[in-house]
Amino acid sequence: MEGLAWLNCQLLLGSKSPRRRELLSQLGIPFRLVEIDVEESIEPDVSADKVAEQLACKKALAYTAGLADNEVLVTADTVVVHDSSVLGKPHSRAEAIGMLHLLSGCTHQVYTGVSLRSNCFSDSFTERTDVVFKSLRDEEIAYYVDTYRPFDKAGAYGIQEWIGMIGIERIEGCYYNVMGLPVVRLYKELQRLVN
Amino acid sequence: MEGLAWLNCQLLLGSKSPRRRELLSQLGIPFRLVEIDVEESIEPDVSADKVAEQLACKKALAYTAGLADNEVLVTADTVVVHDSSVLGKPHSRAEAIGMLHLLSGCTHQVYTGVSLRSNCFSDSFTERTDVVFKSLRDEEIAYYVDTYRPFDKAGAYGIQEWIGMIGIERIEGCYYNVMGLPVVRLYKELQRLVN
Repeated sequence: MEGLAWLNCQLLLGSKSPRRRELLSQLGIPFRLVEIDVEESIEPDVSADKVAEQLACKKALAYTAGLADNEVLVTADTVVVHDSSVLGKPHSRAEAIGMLHLLSGCTHQVYTGVSLRSNCFSDSFTERTDVVFKSLRDEEIAYYVDTYRPFDKAGAYGIQEWIGMIGIERIEGCYYNVMGLPVVRLYKELQRLVN
Repeated sequence: MEGLAWLNCQLLLGSKSPRRRELLSQLGIPFRLVEIDVEESIEPDVSADKVAEQLACKKALAYTAGLADNEVLVTADTVVVHDSSVLGKPHSRAEAIGMLHLLSGCTHQVYTGVSLRSNCFSDSFTERTDVVFKSLRDEEIAYYVDTYRPFDKAGAYGIQEWIGMIGIERIEGCYYNVMGLPVVRLYKELQRLVN
């Protein structure tokens, strides 16, 4: 058994996130990248804990190239939720600093939604992880934002980066879910659906 | 601010663990490695949740080269506890496979004990993380043990390796604590003790 090489399908990953690509590689599943362009806008009537799954499904539907019978398309989206509000990617230094001030000293939720689609099935799920930040000092936030420039990250942080190492006291749930892909859950769902 | 470069001390890390060295580097704290040789035997009357801290302190006491006034010695030990029994490092393939069968489908505890010692203070603490494994298949365990050879790891697994990615459903506590160093807690204790 070479990782999941025995999995009887060809995975297609529709994601621009380098972290998702890295995680899927580490899982030992061979996959091919496909490009999907979609507006990541949130429908106003979707509750915060369902936004990620809805966006993952929207990405899957935007893939119009067609699937071969042995292909499974994986798409995903991750959002950070603080006090029932969705924090997206920050558009500026000030917005990134503002988001980290919001998360400082609090527990927030990270939801990753995943869609799995083939010619035989269509499945989606959401995985939630609770994340607890210590009280961050102003100079820690400024140092992180200026050094790591987290403008491509929901909630303005990467758990695997410096701010996660000095700032995240504890999590409850899957660590890799916070990075952007709930790998254990994905692995289990693939085993269930494909084998 | 360059990470913790503003920390007004010289850290010495007394650890052979490549993972601890890597984590401390990522924390941005400059440090120097020192060698400490100590028998990692467990006193019979120490409770499972205190073993790691006791071994960390034993390592600190075994460092006899002396400290300069600005130096802080960091030592640590990590143990895996299942049903109140301490699992050490496996000595053979069979023992590694046996340990992973024990952990499969269960919650266990990981305790890392840390000692901080200078000429002015001596401090130690324990950080606990609960880890939940899914039910592992025989072939997943065999593949992992034969490929990753986890003979230098307490409990016969590395959370950051393949088995962690396909097998660990959730954790409660600090992820890096399971890798061998509770970096957030260490950072906070250093800020408290040194500044």
